[in-house]
Amino acid sequence: MKSGSITVPTSRTMELVDITHQVSAELKNTGAAKGLCFLFNPHTTAGLTINEGADPDVNTDIIDGFRKFVPIDYPFKHLEGNSPAHIMASLMGSSLTIAIEDGALRLGTWQRIFFCEFDGPRTRKIHLHFVQG
Amino acid sequence: MKSGSITVPTSRTMELVDITHQVSAELKNTGAAKGLCFLFNPHTTAGLTINEGADPDVNTDIIDGFRKFVPIDYPFKHLEGNSPAHIMASLMGSSLTIAIEDGALRLGTWQRIFFCEFDGPRTRKIHLHFVQG
Amino acid sequence: MKSGSITVPTSRTMELVDITHQVSAELKNTGAAKGLCFLFNPHTTAGLTINEGADPDVNTDIIDGFRKFVPIDYPFKHLEGNSPAHIMASLMGSSLTIAIEDGALRLGTWQRIFFCEFDGPRTRKIHLHFVQG
Repeated sequence: MKSGSITVPTSRTMELVDITHQVSAELKNTGAAKGLCFLFNPHTTAGLTINEGADPDVNTDIIDGFRKFVPIDYPFKHLEGNSPAHIMASLMGSSLTIAIEDGALRLGTWQRIFFCEFDGPRTRKIHLHFVQG
Repeated sequence: MKSGSITVPTSRTMELVDITHQVSAELKNTGAAKGLCFLFNPHTTAGLTINEGADPDVNTDIIDGFRKFVPIDYPFKHLEGNSPAHIMASLMGSSLTIAIEDGALRLGTWQRIFFCEFDGPRTRKIHLHFVQG
Repeated sequence: MKSGSITVPTSRTMELVDITHQVSAELKNTGAAKGLCFLFNPHTTAGLTINEGADPDVNTDIIDGFRKFVPIDYPFKHLEGNSPAHIMASLMGSSLTIAIEDGALRLGTWQRIFFCEFDGPRTRKIHLHFVQG
């Protein structure tokens, strides 16, 4: 197993940032041809997801949709005031698993990997682990 | 690592399709006795989940529940009109990890593997990866 | 791959139970220094998530948030009456993947591992799989 990490600066309170190029670049550095790529988000107000990358409206629609059903103005107990971001983090999940074939991530035609910022802007890190197999 | 894929035809706009038998059949073909099975959904308006398979009402209740809280009639920007399906895809997630023991998937008593169609009907594919360990 | 399991007794209908110490103890038993830890929940009305553990209000806020948007009083078809728990189980997901480094789980500073009970109280089990790599 080879490990690495990428840095993701975010610029808004909530946004989806396409990190596919960064993950692919790290994969190339490892030289792994076949196996599995694991991404892990070490933050509690952010997440990871795979979704459409062709139309940027999809990213903003996902954020808008989340803001419509996760209760943003509910009087949560956590005094930091970012409980909606913690809820969205759990909804998205903290890790992704993607196959590696011929030295590349085996994503679907329209799929891109997104870092999900729910309490930004901040500078975030994502851990990567590549298992040859 | 041995890889394969299964084809899942769907017949409704939104539905959960039990694919446990298909995944188990692919696992048998590989002959793996112990290790991990990874499922990956390459589509952006579909997902994967594990839930109860005994009562088919649970499947339809999950779809009904999603349709109640994901804003279906919200004026999303994505012109294709299927943003709710993209949101549901991210809520379910794109991959599953299941242990293999004695040549079989180690699921809980009531668990079955479901392909989640959110923008059908279509013919879909799921990628499978089996790691002996 | 080495496998084990932990038992998680729950005391409320819905709650998040911090199981980080139990997972870490199992990891130490295996002696794995580097690799990946996979957690699997075999129950259909429960889930797994990673979120903040410092302030216990975050756990209860996550449950409160879920109860606000998942339709609790909707006339679902499943006669057992616990369809909201099945929906929450799929929202959280059935498995987690965490890297192992220097014999420890590589979690973020504020991250803890939570078992998510949505239909308790019950005595639950979580399966653990450690892959050296």
